[in-house]
Amino acid sequence: MSLADLTMRLRDFAAARDWEQFHTPKNLAMALSGEAGELISLFQWLTPEQAAAAMRDPELAADIEDELADVLLYLVRLADVLDVDLIKAANAKIDRNETRFPRISPG
Amino acid sequence: MSLADLTMRLRDFAAARDWEQFHTPKNLAMALSGEAGELISLFQWLTPEQAAAAMRDPELAADIEDELADVLLYLVRLADVLDVDLIKAANAKIDRNETRFPRISPG
Amino acid sequence: MSLADLTMRLRDFAAARDWEQFHTPKNLAMALSGEAGELISLFQWLTPEQAAAAMRDPELAADIEDELADVLLYLVRLADVLDVDLIKAANAKIDRNETRFPRISPG
Amino acid sequence: MSLADLTMRLRDFAAARDWEQFHTPKNLAMALSGEAGELISLFQWLTPEQAAAAMRDPELAADIEDELADVLLYLVRLADVLDVDLIKAANAKIDRNETRFPRISPG
Repeated sequence: MSLADLTMRLRDFAAARDWEQFHTPKNLAMALSGEAGELISLFQWLTPEQAAAAMRDPELAADIEDELADVLLYLVRLADVLDVDLIKAANAKIDRNETRFPRISPG
Repeated sequence: MSLADLTMRLRDFAAARDWEQFHTPKNLAMALSGEAGELISLFQWLTPEQAAAAMRDPELAADIEDELADVLLYLVRLADVLDVDLIKAANAKIDRNETRFPRISPG
Repeated sequence: MSLADLTMRLRDFAAARDWEQFHTPKNLAMALSGEAGELISLFQWLTPEQAAAAMRDPELAADIEDELADVLLYLVRLADVLDVDLIKAANAKIDRNETRFPRISPG
Repeated sequence: MSLADLTMRLRDFAAARDWEQFHTPKNLAMALSGEAGELISLFQWLTPEQAAAAMRDPELAADIEDELADVLLYLVRLADVLDVDLIKAANAKIDRNETRFPRISPG
């Protein structure tokens, strides 16, 4: 399934619940920020070593997958409401970063 | 281009700059949160009406695309470092949400 | 009670639980960001009118006070660990803002 | 200067610039979240050791003080708009935490 399919699934999900009224850019940006906060809270008290091994703990792994998903869902929904092509915007940003930060290794 | 392609492009980007040492789960979660903060700051003083029309302002639209891209890039990179399939996690989350929040309209 | 008293109370709280090892600048900045995310999530689906009346709902009011408190606690603790005088820093920032943004009304 | 004085200074600052119209709970919560994001971005690529020594770098120290101040300013302003006594709420929260997390050392 592609990001475009996910966009359509979320658009249908919102429509079927009459939630489009809540999905304004401000509200969705707030929801995205709130989910990023929940994601970060899973890592805040871990040492770097514990964080690197986080996915080996089944309960923590499930929470991390859940929060990563929530961030993606609100990001995709916000981009849809704003009519932004996320993949295109991301590649354009990497293009600019390749100019700003030259590679130091061959490849 | 798919999310999987984007993942590979970012993996190569980090490797070519010897940045893998910085891309720990804690650091990437912080970067994601910082970018969500930059995104939200673009909308904070707008009225709901101004926010809904934000993409009609070319300069603001470029900033919004840039920040949406940054959030996606760190999200994809964090998921890659944690070995999480973002699309799969997102669909699993929508599956659960469909049970939690029944549709109110036919479809 | 002043912000200095609150700083001392939190310092004692951490010491009495052997939590100083967790209270690094990175970890506290993450915790602060996570609490800001919880705070924002209380307002995300409210209309501007509902948000303005939020404190009239006793349950929501208690949640808001709780999250405002959490943000302050981590902010005070982070400033203490970094040896920053928050009140002084805040006044210095307002001084700069007074120059950047001239008053438009007499006073 | 106390937090109450800072509250009054910010209230006057907003009134003198006719900014009260922008200082709604939703907007201020967004601004607080955005500033928390700027603060966290100062620490994201630092090792724990570099973060612990951050205040010894004059330029970074100035940025950290600036961002800590911004978080406090929006927190104080948001609490004022909501008519919440921040110090009281913070102490009430520590009271609850003292029950939830018993001290492990004498004192």
